[in-house]
Amino acid sequence: MSTSISIFDTTLRDGTQGEGISLSADDKLKIAKKLDDLGVHYIEGGIPGSNSKDIEFFKRVQELGLKAKIVAFGSTRRKDSIAAQDVNLQRILESGAQAATLVGKSWDFHVHTALQTTLEENLSMIYDSIAFLKQGGMEVIFDAEHFFDGYKNNPDYALAVLKKAEEAGADWLVMCDTNGGTMPHEVHEIVSTLHSQLTRSQLGIHTHNDCELAVANTLSAVQAGARQVQGTINGYGERCGNANLCSVIPNLQLKLGYDFLGDIKLKQLYNTARFVSEIANVNMPVNQPYIGNAAFAHKGGIHVSAIMRDSRTYEHIAPELVGNKQRVLVSELAGQSNVVSKAQELGISLDPSSEEARGVIGRIKELEHQGYQFEGADASLELLIREAGGEIKEMFSFESFKVLVEKAADRPVVSEAFLKLNVAGTSVYTAAEGNGPVNALDNALRKALSQYFPALQDMHLADYKVRVLDEKDATAAKVRVLIESKNFEDVWSNVGVSENVIEASWEALLDSFRYALLEVPAPKNEQTEPTHQGLVNH
Amino acid sequence: MSTSISIFDTTLRDGTQGEGISLSADDKLKIAKKLDDLGVHYIEGGIPGSNSKDIEFFKRVQELGLKAKIVAFGSTRRKDSIAAQDVNLQRILESGAQAATLVGKSWDFHVHTALQTTLEENLSMIYDSIAFLKQGGMEVIFDAEHFFDGYKNNPDYALAVLKKAEEAGADWLVMCDTNGGTMPHEVHEIVSTLHSQLTRSQLGIHTHNDCELAVANTLSAVQAGARQVQGTINGYGERCGNANLCSVIPNLQLKLGYDFLGDIKLKQLYNTARFVSEIANVNMPVNQPYIGNAAFAHKGGIHVSAIMRDSRTYEHIAPELVGNKQRVLVSELAGQSNVVSKAQELGISLDPSSEEARGVIGRIKELEHQGYQFEGADASLELLIREAGGEIKEMFSFESFKVLVEKAADRPVVSEAFLKLNVAGTSVYTAAEGNGPVNALDNALRKALSQYFPALQDMHLADYKVRVLDEKDATAAKVRVLIESKNFEDVWSNVGVSENVIEASWEALLDSFRYALLEVPAPKNEQTEPTHQGLVNH
Repeated sequence: MSTSISIFDTTLRDGTQGEGISLSADDKLKIAKKLDDLGVHYIEGGIPGSNSKDIEFFKRVQELGLKAKIVAFGSTRRKDSIAAQDVNLQRILESGAQAATLVGKSWDFHVHTALQTTLEENLSMIYDSIAFLKQGGMEVIFDAEHFFDGYKNNPDYALAVLKKAEEAGADWLVMCDTNGGTMPHEVHEIVSTLHSQLTRSQLGIHTHNDCELAVANTLSAVQAGARQVQGTINGYGERCGNANLCSVIPNLQLKLGYDFLGDIKLKQLYNTARFVSEIANVNMPVNQPYIGNAAFAHKGGIHVSAIMRDSRTYEHIAPELVGNKQRVLVSELAGQSNVVSKAQELGISLDPSSEEARGVIGRIKELEHQGYQFEGADASLELLIREAGGEIKEMFSFESFKVLVEKAADRPVVSEAFLKLNVAGTSVYTAAEGNGPVNALDNALRKALSQYFPALQDMHLADYKVRVLDEKDATAAKVRVLIESKNFEDVWSNVGVSENVIEASWEALLDSFRYALLEVPAPKNEQTEPTHQGLVNH
Repeated sequence: MSTSISIFDTTLRDGTQGEGISLSADDKLKIAKKLDDLGVHYIEGGIPGSNSKDIEFFKRVQELGLKAKIVAFGSTRRKDSIAAQDVNLQRILESGAQAATLVGKSWDFHVHTALQTTLEENLSMIYDSIAFLKQGGMEVIFDAEHFFDGYKNNPDYALAVLKKAEEAGADWLVMCDTNGGTMPHEVHEIVSTLHSQLTRSQLGIHTHNDCELAVANTLSAVQAGARQVQGTINGYGERCGNANLCSVIPNLQLKLGYDFLGDIKLKQLYNTARFVSEIANVNMPVNQPYIGNAAFAHKGGIHVSAIMRDSRTYEHIAPELVGNKQRVLVSELAGQSNVVSKAQELGISLDPSSEEARGVIGRIKELEHQGYQFEGADASLELLIREAGGEIKEMFSFESFKVLVEKAADRPVVSEAFLKLNVAGTSVYTAAEGNGPVNALDNALRKALSQYFPALQDMHLADYKVRVLDEKDATAAKVRVLIESKNFEDVWSNVGVSENVIEASWEALLDSFRYALLEVPAPKNEQTEPTHQGLVNH
């Protein structure tokens, strides 16, 4: 049996059925290009019969000249009608896509309940629709919806459905666990049985994550003979999502020794996942397998000292294989070795026994004792380490702020910030409103700095977290604020701690701007007479 | 073979090794109580040998009288030493826990590289440590670290490790996939082999999610004979996390037909997961299997019309089995029955079909849509229900506040609040400072009210939590504030939501005082000339 697997990406179709995921035609084109770079073999772009956005995608994607096959999705013809007259099937043919995914029913319960037709008519719908698209010259992938539920309920009928699709000329028969309720051992049994009975078409697998088993079910099906794997980047999809290709691909290649038609560029997984999450505007879970920021992050002290000896002690693969990297979290659970290896990661050599190293380690310990936590605030840690090395050239200095929040019973709340900075020897005084006090401060700070440093206009805050450190004292307790910032290339996080939530937020905010300015050249004195309205120079 | 499975929760130990998860002793006690309510059999609380926070937990958890066994975690004795003189082992014995998890090496590579000792000495370390704890009267669970990597590298040695632990009297032999790199078929093969060779101790499984297979590997091990399952709520844990009990438990019970020693209250899974995520201050992924808010959410079209006919068409289980609910479109179905039963609990009869009931249910739905969550804010819910019944006599009304926060580079931050209320027809104007803006508001409110209502002097804020609701907008996003208040008799919680953290805090603060005054008689007019200094009457 061939060990070559085809990767079928449905991020642009099934992925967009996930809650909170919505992609424009432009977004879809950008992602298609990125998927093609990664090396997937099929890119399912959408449903040409459903909306003009998808019709536009199929038209414009042809101009990109991608290597991957573009796939259009649709259902079998309506009951009691003629395939050639079915508008949705016509749209698929006209889309310009090389391949079509045709979804049909294989669970008798669904034929009766959802389609409200006979088992015989459903078989005709499948046969006619596939034959029509094959006559039109397309490669046809038949997605047998609810296949496993169908097979468990009525194996003869489920098998008859696949045989009918094969007879009509389907290139692929894909078994779908549409509701995501099937167990891996069942998938293995059922696919093995079918693999011995269906010999003309190749088999594929499409799973959902409702039992947290989509990846496992995909592997089970491949081990039983399936050769096409359908899934999405980051596992986006209806309800709990689809099989996550960012886990499926490295599992198949690195763990099970399969290879792929053509070449999947495994090292690009990390960037591809981030690119798609940015376009979809969904945060990446920090603990995502293989490509999450915590996937190779070590916190326990014993773990850290062991990976310093040999990283295989607590890493199942070399993180670089998927484009990720090892991180050492500096936290209460760890010690000096974490700081030293963090400095190494930043390209700063820090001799553990030097005065300088002891200084920064002492400072970090002192700050941690005050409630700072650097494991989620890499940028603050980097600022501390670079400061210790005398490497930071400050671009501005803080003088003062005032924040005023006013609320009357019958009127909306008003938040204002008044901020004084010194930039390149000039005092800069700004005022701004905001949705809340921190937003007002953020607005004032950006207003003050962005005309000296235009690069800051691309930067925005992506996440803001507040944590009360000692609950016993409630509103008089210390709070820790974590701020995540982003620009087109990077994501970085800063921390602030204070008994005052505004002061803690300010500290994190200030450091996120200082970090953004690490690589930026200092403003010349000639530039210090800005004309931006709202900016007042003294 | 028995089909009864023991659930071993390590949220409080391995869970806290996840990035961004940090729990105080108080947090741990609250979670332990909730886990006990759920019905887990073992609660691993921490490492008594590592820090004073965990020692405090083990001491205080004994006062809770939980049904679950409390477990203390530690490593085998140091090399070339005596178990009885090992401080960490002594701490485990002294912790008061009924059971101990003892972790030992089973991968020869780790014995050489991390422990830097001989294979023989490692066996002695395991034997001595287990025997010492057994002599001390504890149940001993032996966690064989890196068992699968060890077995694949040197099966004889890995087996010898388990046999030595069995010989020393270990009650459980738990095979750990510490690096999370093992495939489900390998787990099945290896556990099956061992199950036939180890007959005195029972087998357990501990997996990590580095390949997105922690749940599948756990199921594989159980199907091969393991009878203890280790995992965490929401899958928190080192790197990519541990096996997620919120998926493992329903898979075992609903899909594979296993039962549990004692009784796991499956319907409480949804609430337990949310409670733990609130305490840990980590957002729940919307697409989390079984208990995520999108797990049974259906986007428009074909799926929705099919589930209206029969929800089995697109749901693999009835969501109520795990305490979740079906969602269609965006509407939050804040269970009508919840509201009615809450009213009953408060002794208010609320006919579900009455105008009054529909009114309060409509209001709650609207507030939930805005981001309020009443699961953790019973007192706010009670105020809403009593309001609907016309049962609340307001003791004061809010007129306005101003909050001012000032900070200069060389001076400490200053926070002041100015508050205007109306109490019994009199305008009361107070000013107060605080450690932060919310503390200043709290001080001003207490100052204004406590001399009209002396009972408020016994009340204080016990917990304060801030949660960002939509991370995409960062500092312009809505925040939800939860405040827990206490007096000598009661504990109650209130919620506030706003784009402005000060306004959200104010709303929760105000309601916590309103709630405290529910049982208090109204002030007489004679009392409205208070003499408290700092209080200004107009």
